[in-house]
Amino acid sequence: MAPVKVFGSAVFANAARVMACLEEVGVEYEVVEVDYMAREHKGLKHLARNPFGQIPAFQDGDIMLFESRAISKYVLRKYAKSAQDDLLREGNPEEAAMVDAWTEVEAHHYFPAMAPIFYECVVYPARLGTVPDQKIVGESLEKLRKVLDVYEAHLSRTKSKYLAGNFFSFADLNHFPFTFHIMTATPHASLFDSYPHIKAWWARVMARPSLKKISTHMEIKP
Amino acid sequence: MAPVKVFGSAVFANAARVMACLEEVGVEYEVVEVDYMAREHKGLKHLARNPFGQIPAFQDGDIMLFESRAISKYVLRKYAKSAQDDLLREGNPEEAAMVDAWTEVEAHHYFPAMAPIFYECVVYPARLGTVPDQKIVGESLEKLRKVLDVYEAHLSRTKSKYLAGNFFSFADLNHFPFTFHIMTATPHASLFDSYPHIKAWWARVMARPSLKKISTHMEIKP
Repeated sequence: MAPVKVFGSAVFANAARVMACLEEVGVEYEVVEVDYMAREHKGLKHLARNPFGQIPAFQDGDIMLFESRAISKYVLRKYAKSAQDDLLREGNPEEAAMVDAWTEVEAHHYFPAMAPIFYECVVYPARLGTVPDQKIVGESLEKLRKVLDVYEAHLSRTKSKYLAGNFFSFADLNHFPFTFHIMTATPHASLFDSYPHIKAWWARVMARPSLKKISTHMEIKP
Repeated sequence: MAPVKVFGSAVFANAARVMACLEEVGVEYEVVEVDYMAREHKGLKHLARNPFGQIPAFQDGDIMLFESRAISKYVLRKYAKSAQDDLLREGNPEEAAMVDAWTEVEAHHYFPAMAPIFYECVVYPARLGTVPDQKIVGESLEKLRKVLDVYEAHLSRTKSKYLAGNFFSFADLNHFPFTFHIMTATPHASLFDSYPHIKAWWARVMARPSLKKISTHMEIKP
């Protein structure tokens, strides 16, 4: 079987999300580079893969997919072989609901607060040569801390090892790419220090072999 | 069995999303009002249901859930009784991937472009007595038209009746609450006129008995 293809390297956080899922279920994949600086993602060839001209796109035989969260679920749903790599838990409505809830929380609360920090401190300096706007970073950190208060209370109250329960799930994995950049490429690596339950959760997440492996390919260089 | 509870009425678009799913699978539900103007959604009682203090929250026996898309999937996954009300298609990875992709497109492209129009033309006038800022509305319409170009091309190319294929799915349903408000409560009801495939799709979506029923409870009054 020809390996599946991911269009866009792990330098792109949303491509890293997809690759983390492929590693979790042990599927071989080929990475096809898309030259962002040359605007290849807005070229006809890539637009045929992803009509919004974004990275990543994904191919599995005749199927071409876009939207990293949809691709990730496809990979997990199609290729999970055991209960251990069932990161969606769709067979159990209660567990799946917790996975979905914290996946949505990442998308609608966590990421929107973290994104400006990521762009100001990591992406724009590398791609545009700018220095971080500290007002934007400060306001975003403030917003993010309010979100983290909810996470800390949730993990403390439920005494769960992971966000959706005592099992690693897609909800946890979704936090990986952007949090990893914040922790390793910005001056805010101590962000979780005042949240003991979040800090312990993040250590557990980063102990996953899949995430360790992908993280070695994620450095955004100028 | 005690009926499930939705905290927040259909006036709140994200509560309407959940109710549309409950109607689709034929589950009886009780609507518990949350007084937004009295800031009841930020009170301790509601924060215990939804730690982000948002509407809706949802209760099914011992389970309390938040995030409308997660609640909706829980309802569809747990209560769908036939192939006809299987709006997620999780048994078929290829179909589910298309449902997920267009659900993500709604969340990350369609809604962000439509939201400012909704708030400027519907929510703020009703709640704050303001008049719409036409600059914001104009820029959002411009952004939305670029997204609609992708939808029109997709529906035209695939010749599908619905976004994920020739079946009504959660991807279509997700577009309902906010689009309904734009179509009925703003001066932009003709938005789809220059997109024949989108216009035909929207007519098919609005022919669903579930959506017809919920839409009679959605009017946002000053």
